[in-house]
Amino acid sequence: MSSGDFSAEDSRFMQRALVLAERGWGTTHPNPMVGAVIVEDGEIVAEGWHARSGEAHAEKAALAALKRSPRCGAKMYVTLEPCSTPGRTGACTTSIINAGLSEVIVAADDPNPLHAGRAYPVLAKAGIQVRSGLLAKQATRLNRIFNHWIQRAQPFVAAKIALTLDGKFATRTGHAQWVTGQEARADVMRWRRLFPAIMVGPGTILADDPQLTARLEVETWCPQRIVLDRTLRTVLEDAPLPRVYTDGDRSKTRVFCSKLASAEKRQRLLELGVEVVPMPSTLEGSPLLKAVFTACGQAGLSGVFIEPGPGLFSSLLAANCLNMMIHYTAPKYLADAGAHGVGGLRPPLSMDQALTLDEVEHQAFGEDMRTIGLLPNT
Amino acid sequence: MSSGDFSAEDSRFMQRALVLAERGWGTTHPNPMVGAVIVEDGEIVAEGWHARSGEAHAEKAALAALKRSPRCGAKMYVTLEPCSTPGRTGACTTSIINAGLSEVIVAADDPNPLHAGRAYPVLAKAGIQVRSGLLAKQATRLNRIFNHWIQRAQPFVAAKIALTLDGKFATRTGHAQWVTGQEARADVMRWRRLFPAIMVGPGTILADDPQLTARLEVETWCPQRIVLDRTLRTVLEDAPLPRVYTDGDRSKTRVFCSKLASAEKRQRLLELGVEVVPMPSTLEGSPLLKAVFTACGQAGLSGVFIEPGPGLFSSLLAANCLNMMIHYTAPKYLADAGAHGVGGLRPPLSMDQALTLDEVEHQAFGEDMRTIGLLPNT
Repeated sequence: MSSGDFSAEDSRFMQRALVLAERGWGTTHPNPMVGAVIVEDGEIVAEGWHARSGEAHAEKAALAALKRSPRCGAKMYVTLEPCSTPGRTGACTTSIINAGLSEVIVAADDPNPLHAGRAYPVLAKAGIQVRSGLLAKQATRLNRIFNHWIQRAQPFVAAKIALTLDGKFATRTGHAQWVTGQEARADVMRWRRLFPAIMVGPGTILADDPQLTARLEVETWCPQRIVLDRTLRTVLEDAPLPRVYTDGDRSKTRVFCSKLASAEKRQRLLELGVEVVPMPSTLEGSPLLKAVFTACGQAGLSGVFIEPGPGLFSSLLAANCLNMMIHYTAPKYLADAGAHGVGGLRPPLSMDQALTLDEVEHQAFGEDMRTIGLLPNT
Repeated sequence: MSSGDFSAEDSRFMQRALVLAERGWGTTHPNPMVGAVIVEDGEIVAEGWHARSGEAHAEKAALAALKRSPRCGAKMYVTLEPCSTPGRTGACTTSIINAGLSEVIVAADDPNPLHAGRAYPVLAKAGIQVRSGLLAKQATRLNRIFNHWIQRAQPFVAAKIALTLDGKFATRTGHAQWVTGQEARADVMRWRRLFPAIMVGPGTILADDPQLTARLEVETWCPQRIVLDRTLRTVLEDAPLPRVYTDGDRSKTRVFCSKLASAEKRQRLLELGVEVVPMPSTLEGSPLLKAVFTACGQAGLSGVFIEPGPGLFSSLLAANCLNMMIHYTAPKYLADAGAHGVGGLRPPLSMDQALTLDEVEHQAFGEDMRTIGLLPNT
């Protein structure tokens, strides 16, 4: 196995495999997105990707799509190290060896420390050339949810916020529609589609009465919806209930509340078919948030996408619960110290105590900017 | 004259002319930056740019660089409409006609409404083909200072600020070194080099004791330095004076203060060779700022680059004095409502009342982002 040099052609094929991997955007949980292409004489002759947990892995999908045996000298480009343990669908290394491929080029190693790199000697022993590390960064980024989940058995937690250049969520009166433009808001829908679960606080439910669905051109999809509402103040007594408790997807809504929250309100939600998770009444702030994410993990949720308002965001920062920020900045100023901004940390006294993002990526959406970065020490 | 179709080759030549124009970065005031290339048989045979007010215009510089007459069919690509009035250096249209060029391709029209478009019939009458509008946007952006100055006889005022993602200048203790990284700070030096004048408030002088020079790889350059200090609190009585009042470039420092400011302090500055501009004592806030910029214009300054702290920035927004924002965003959070942020506007009650930038451009500098935009109604 070498992590040797790669040609421009190699990169082109792997780029294609990454595009194929993304076809599993949001549908592979708890599995990763993976794409693969088979190349003969410098041309792609078959493509595959992992579509859904329990269905074929990308390597097998590509081999199946070929509908014949690969020719002598055929190579496979695959975005993730092939599995070498049988699992539900048989080890991909076995399929690759049986198919008689001559070379396998891999982007990212298996993130599971127990499996990482184990495919390579298996393939090499069978006389297959192996190179790895081509576009590894992109491939790893694509599967942050899976990687985190497999390494820590805790959900990968991302928060999306949209602020003005001067760091405001909303005017002092709470008005926030809209901070960003259409393109940025469409991008948020893609993130909602990626994560198995979406979470908001009570303020957002009361202010916006959101559906929390991913409204895409091709489909509207409802993730597991999580409402964090300790006192169940979103269960209004003298107004229509919010949509997440009453719409056709209400069985996909889960409310975390305190055990002390009104039994009557809890009953009302249960009768509607909404799931209610009472948490120990002693829990609030950081311990409550940590317990909620642990519960999410125990429920098999590999990732949680949060759209916090100012209050929940401050609590999340203070609790050090966030793994990733998806931060949209709109080119505007409210220039009002009284508008809703970000708080929550023990006041940093020098600039180097600021909470600084890692692996920062910027991308423009219309006139808005999206900054993605990882939180340190999470 | 047609603003017809342009080929990829046309764009390439004009792009080169724009690169040449930028060689006049900061040195052409109050003139614009202009670049020109002469093309024969699809190849650039001569290049020129305007280096300094009083020296050759780009068109003449290119013709001079050719050192012979252009061949039949020769074209000139020039980033700004050639001047058609004699001026100090003779009309460029005359030089072009005398040189016998066959075609002139122009990026931006003359921004002076009295001159705009006047070159084209002059050239056409002499049998020269003219096309305009190629990369006009880039060419116009390059000369925002000149364009504004020529159209309004007021300096073009830009503010540079560097904030965290949550909109903070500094920690609550005032610590701000550094918000952004090395690349962004190097970019600030380029802006300091571009503008004929730089302005700060007293807070910045006292906190940072800055030199306010443009420290570039090739040179260190000192613009006209302007300190806005109504009460002359930067003229310290029991500590060494700030560098802008004592360094070798102190004759390039101008202090705007109130007529009521200590006569003794004013005298001290004058004796050091610092220029002092006493303003009517009735002026403060917005009227003072407006009067200061008018005075800058009267002193022939076509542009002012401000590096405001939180206080001056809020005043500038409130006074509606800014034409352009150069806003750096660092991928970090202070997450402290008590840290220094942006204020100053009458509190907007809905998001659509936010001050929204026009002609927004984003560019990454290391992990930081630069957002440039124009302020509306200025």
